[in-house]
Amino acid sequence: MTNTAIIGIGQTDVREHWETSIRHLAWYAIEAALDDAHIHDIDAIYVGNMLAGQLSNQNHLGALVADFAGLRGVEAMTVEAADASGGAALRQAILAVESGLVETALVVGVEKVTDETGSPVLAALATALDSDYEVINGQTLTGAGALLMRRYMHVYGVQLADFAGFSVNAHANAAANPRAMYRNRLKPEAFAAAPMVADPVSLFDEAPAGDGAAALIVTRADRAGDMVAQPVQVLASALATDALALHDRRDPLWLSAAEASARRAFAAAGLSPNDIDVFELHDSFTVMAALSLEACGFAARGEGWQLARDGHIRRDGRIPISTFGGLKARGNPIGATGVYQIAELVQQLRGKAGDCQVAGAQVGMAQNLGGTGATAVTHILRG
Amino acid sequence: MTNTAIIGIGQTDVREHWETSIRHLAWYAIEAALDDAHIHDIDAIYVGNMLAGQLSNQNHLGALVADFAGLRGVEAMTVEAADASGGAALRQAILAVESGLVETALVVGVEKVTDETGSPVLAALATALDSDYEVINGQTLTGAGALLMRRYMHVYGVQLADFAGFSVNAHANAAANPRAMYRNRLKPEAFAAAPMVADPVSLFDEAPAGDGAAALIVTRADRAGDMVAQPVQVLASALATDALALHDRRDPLWLSAAEASARRAFAAAGLSPNDIDVFELHDSFTVMAALSLEACGFAARGEGWQLARDGHIRRDGRIPISTFGGLKARGNPIGATGVYQIAELVQQLRGKAGDCQVAGAQVGMAQNLGGTGATAVTHILRG
Repeated sequence: MTNTAIIGIGQTDVREHWETSIRHLAWYAIEAALDDAHIHDIDAIYVGNMLAGQLSNQNHLGALVADFAGLRGVEAMTVEAADASGGAALRQAILAVESGLVETALVVGVEKVTDETGSPVLAALATALDSDYEVINGQTLTGAGALLMRRYMHVYGVQLADFAGFSVNAHANAAANPRAMYRNRLKPEAFAAAPMVADPVSLFDEAPAGDGAAALIVTRADRAGDMVAQPVQVLASALATDALALHDRRDPLWLSAAEASARRAFAAAGLSPNDIDVFELHDSFTVMAALSLEACGFAARGEGWQLARDGHIRRDGRIPISTFGGLKARGNPIGATGVYQIAELVQQLRGKAGDCQVAGAQVGMAQNLGGTGATAVTHILRG
Repeated sequence: MTNTAIIGIGQTDVREHWETSIRHLAWYAIEAALDDAHIHDIDAIYVGNMLAGQLSNQNHLGALVADFAGLRGVEAMTVEAADASGGAALRQAILAVESGLVETALVVGVEKVTDETGSPVLAALATALDSDYEVINGQTLTGAGALLMRRYMHVYGVQLADFAGFSVNAHANAAANPRAMYRNRLKPEAFAAAPMVADPVSLFDEAPAGDGAAALIVTRADRAGDMVAQPVQVLASALATDALALHDRRDPLWLSAAEASARRAFAAAGLSPNDIDVFELHDSFTVMAALSLEACGFAARGEGWQLARDGHIRRDGRIPISTFGGLKARGNPIGATGVYQIAELVQQLRGKAGDCQVAGAQVGMAQNLGGTGATAVTHILRG
């Protein structure tokens, strides 16, 4: 168990924020988080971001965001691990607070993909993969997802329609989340009939990239109770890596980084998958949701998709996932995604998730993945 | 004082490494650092890098570098703060070790600017500045340096030739550094006659960007002595920020982030400028060297340039700087620069700096700046 707790959260809508600069997006989330925690003093800021350099011609977000949020001078830097940047930024904030050298840290995940459109965005997202060996041969992030999904279908004898439950569940949950990018309900028939993006990944299979920012305030657990009514305890935090390229992995259908980070997190928390009431996973593709469930021990190998088919991932199911819509329907603000996951868990564990609430949720887990799983960050929280 | 020490260092040459990929560069430095520390086990890797996404189409360097260095699975991520990325990565490694959750951390700064040439490099470097308010109006990093230098000359009544001492000293020191990009000696007359890049910044004023990687092994000080013969103690570590845009600062001629981080570092170490035997500063432009000396208390306001004029910055002077050539002559591998500074300090404090040695150096300081000083990272080490 760590001696850290989350005492404030803030989020913007996930959508196309054409009119809003990246610094404004970050500020909106920071302001909300500071208000939520009733504080003004921050010792360090960790920005989770992947693409600002490529899509907004802006690096150096730490100092920029600190200044624009009225926190000029504060220690600040960017943490990057592809679409696991948000989770990695929280991991650094926790280490900083645990060090005793930082009392209160702010984590802000921010991403703005709409400063560009089309192929620059595809090229930027592909920087999560192995540039020299995958991308140079024409691979894209969606193409990599398609390879994984096709392999999964082939090895485990699964059909395209068998993945529908993940997207249907995500959209059903997003309908109750005012921050979500897509609040429309999705029928299994629509999933099965969706246009292909990269066969077998269809329009309703892949999570849509969106603009957004989310923020967290992290401080020592031993003082958090004096600061807010409902601090959320960080029970465990773990980050592991794997080869970037699918072809370099021992087994492309086994997310070893997801497994390693989950195993370490469970050990640190003294818990097992059965103890998790709600799980925010990285459903960038439906197959990634299945693989994450398997790697973390919620399903046997090759059977993750069955949890979706049988309804176990619903809000009233055995292991609710994507309870605010997940990457699929809340939207995927890339480097901010890992921070959204935690902000959503905090709402669940406070019992303040509104119509997204999982009844009686006390222990939550989040897993944020980079690329096709080369980085995995797992956090376990208790309300 | 921190409970961290540096027990291994590694560096590649700084030059145009056309034939070498970014992963190879990182690996060469990592291998050397692991050999130097006589260890193989690493708990976490912090990669200091600014430009790989833009210039090498490669983000997600943490997992990539870990895997390629034979450390697949290890916790790893990138830390970015423009050209202060290397210093910021070390800062995170120190916090991680101080947390007790990471026993041994690897810091690797790596940058490859030669995957592109010309305007893409200029555009990428300009992402250290404020994109929406500086760069959109045509500003470049060199242009920003020129504004600062012109202002300095105007306010303090200093002439162009008065800055020559910084570059002359850097080249004189680099002549003895086999890793340096430019080992030629520079005469004051050549400095004064150099072609203008952005008036008054000339060809021999601005530090040249180069490819390179440097690595450090950081562990707990209380075990470092059992591991290597000459651990170097980290006395203090501090990071502060300022507005990105020059026009947003209270006083463009005062590097408030440099001053704040130095003040905190001196306080934590219980030291003052008089106690520093060698100072690796961020001489991206000669005026930045002057401003850093002033902000850190080595010179009065407006008088930093006099230390160069009077020879006090030489290896046998009052406050030796750029002892391996500094950014100016060792070369400026952007996101790796802050790690080179520390590797060079470690050589000084071990008494193993060869012909670059500052006699009797026991306490060293490094200051790594981002952009025009919006991020400043200060470390104080003792041999």
